[in-house]
Amino acid sequence: MANIAIMGFGTVGSGVAEVVHTNQDSIRRRTLEPVTVKYILDTRDFPNSTYGHLVIHDFSIIEQDPEIQVVVECIGGCGVALDFTRRALLAGKDVVTSNKALVAAHGLELLALAKEQGRNFLFEASVGGGIPVLRPLAFCLAGNRIEEICGILNGTTNYILTKMIRDGEQFDDVLKRAQEKGYAEADPTDDVEGKDACRKICILAALAYGIHVYPEQVYTCGITGIRPQDVACADALGMQIKLFGRTFLTEEGKIALYVSPHLIPNDKPLASVEGVFNAIMIRGNAVGETMFYGRGAGKLPTASAVVGDVVDCILHREKRRAIDWEAGSGEEVVPFESLELRWLVRTEAAAGAVAAALGPVEAVPGQNGAYVTGPVSKAKLDELREKGFSILSAIPVLD
Amino acid sequence: MANIAIMGFGTVGSGVAEVVHTNQDSIRRRTLEPVTVKYILDTRDFPNSTYGHLVIHDFSIIEQDPEIQVVVECIGGCGVALDFTRRALLAGKDVVTSNKALVAAHGLELLALAKEQGRNFLFEASVGGGIPVLRPLAFCLAGNRIEEICGILNGTTNYILTKMIRDGEQFDDVLKRAQEKGYAEADPTDDVEGKDACRKICILAALAYGIHVYPEQVYTCGITGIRPQDVACADALGMQIKLFGRTFLTEEGKIALYVSPHLIPNDKPLASVEGVFNAIMIRGNAVGETMFYGRGAGKLPTASAVVGDVVDCILHREKRRAIDWEAGSGEEVVPFESLELRWLVRTEAAAGAVAAALGPVEAVPGQNGAYVTGPVSKAKLDELREKGFSILSAIPVLD
Repeated sequence: MANIAIMGFGTVGSGVAEVVHTNQDSIRRRTLEPVTVKYILDTRDFPNSTYGHLVIHDFSIIEQDPEIQVVVECIGGCGVALDFTRRALLAGKDVVTSNKALVAAHGLELLALAKEQGRNFLFEASVGGGIPVLRPLAFCLAGNRIEEICGILNGTTNYILTKMIRDGEQFDDVLKRAQEKGYAEADPTDDVEGKDACRKICILAALAYGIHVYPEQVYTCGITGIRPQDVACADALGMQIKLFGRTFLTEEGKIALYVSPHLIPNDKPLASVEGVFNAIMIRGNAVGETMFYGRGAGKLPTASAVVGDVVDCILHREKRRAIDWEAGSGEEVVPFESLELRWLVRTEAAAGAVAAALGPVEAVPGQNGAYVTGPVSKAKLDELREKGFSILSAIPVLD
Repeated sequence: MANIAIMGFGTVGSGVAEVVHTNQDSIRRRTLEPVTVKYILDTRDFPNSTYGHLVIHDFSIIEQDPEIQVVVECIGGCGVALDFTRRALLAGKDVVTSNKALVAAHGLELLALAKEQGRNFLFEASVGGGIPVLRPLAFCLAGNRIEEICGILNGTTNYILTKMIRDGEQFDDVLKRAQEKGYAEADPTDDVEGKDACRKICILAALAYGIHVYPEQVYTCGITGIRPQDVACADALGMQIKLFGRTFLTEEGKIALYVSPHLIPNDKPLASVEGVFNAIMIRGNAVGETMFYGRGAGKLPTASAVVGDVVDCILHREKRRAIDWEAGSGEEVVPFESLELRWLVRTEAAAGAVAAALGPVEAVPGQNGAYVTGPVSKAKLDELREKGFSILSAIPVLD
């Protein structure tokens, strides 16, 4: 029998308890032993919950109970969640978390600690919610040099963009209704400014390239600047606007890594991912393009990923799952500003001035003052802006 | 150091050798030890190959070499491939195969033998080529009751259907050009009649439900009967025609399992999978719908999946990967003929006779004699046909 403890009985934590109970037969088929939730740690009591009798308030009970093999961290944030994760690993427990902020900020330290202790530290649910993507990337695609990862990593922003594109509405109006429907949080900053997607692409890049990159080091542009005119340009080009977290190897073998809205042709698989769904495209030098699609958030999808990790911990009790990465030197990552990308540029400049400033461009059909550039760096665009060249918006374009 | 032997130096086998060599650094990051191809077994010699010096003709050299941990079976078919797989397992080797015919016909026996020997028998490449799907299904989604799997499992037929839909061409013409381009085999029977897809959905169902179902027991209809009129009907309904292998749990908890062309709405993710690509939708009771997309065949994509399995064998040298299933009683599977599905029916019968025969139907806009039925069994359609009711074609429709 494997005993687990759940820390934090909110949406994800209660989902984990529910999945472990409801699907105990499916789980047992893989673990070959029953899995039991022994404790639920929370500051609150839940007298009306089926699991109310499992609730405890003192972490040291979990820490000191040798029967607990796996601790599931669903507290969120980097405060007590970090403290308890450290202490659980030090106490010889495996830890599973859905907490992307924790992994993106402290993954390096926690993985090193897990390795030292010979324990598992797994976090499938931190990227793509229920979609199995981290373990497939790390193990199933182990025979590949990963050339690129490009993902729709945030359901809230994809929902907002889908609505702006379908209904031709303004960002602010869609956001307001998304909040009313519960698809966006009361404080949507982390989502709409791309910070949530940034944490996730940092985790994906760390797994793909073996180097921890911190979110603060990563160029991150969200969707608050997207205007209906940008949507109209995308439409005229047969493209969609999507917020991507993207990482790839440059020709020099350095890591490029950033979050930005992009234009992408309608016939690409990522273009057809709508609403709150997430999808992650992974390109390897052997497998070519693969894509993983599903629900990137929500109680049960996230719990599905957490329970998959719990099963993996139980199967790898003696020999840990080596999902590790190293501290980088800082030299591995190429600055976003120097990457040469194609851009959709909207400008008030005269056509002649555009070619002089940006080099050869293609005019967007039927959209005055809108062009697609050849490969140009953001540094160059910033320089033009400083010199007084009009740039109303600039969005990278993928082929 | 881990030594492997490759049996069969055709497309997949040579791809495996190439991937192991080219991507040795990525592989070593996961295995934590170097992986070396020690032997290549083939009846032929390859004096001009980089790997020519590794070629042997006698299987017993592999069988008797204690240094060989993993044997990669890329011979194909169920003749020597079966014999050598058995003997490799009996000799205490792990076996990795890309051979779906072998797994669909003999998986039960070989898994039992692997279990008995405490060895791994892995076959990720047998379904979906390079797409990681079997291991995610078995382990990442272990916390789910799998409710349905529906997949585009054959690239040749998806290519033919894509061409028929895009260019309005006849099946025979597209097949001929696909053969010229190398997208279809000289003898395309297994592909176009759905047999290849059938083997794959049998493997997926076995993993999802734990029961071996043999291809001969499974209703299998390919795409040779699809006419431009069917494509026109799909178009009028805002749908695509796709060949799906499909398995799901019925309300009574039985397993439904079959291969057939289907109509599917354009806005479903599976509808936008075009050309030679494969995609597998898995629906679990916690995760909801997830989809796995990529190249379902080809030298390097298939080799990518094989090498992922080799890595897993090395990581699970002491404790085997338990991907096992049981013999069924035959009672678990519900006959296709009794399933109640919605159908696109094309008929020469008068409108009045249609409603009398099929119950309430929806006429397909602008397509004379074409209707979408409510839930009706194939047994019922067969009975109507026998009684002389005109049915030109009948294709299941998914919502």
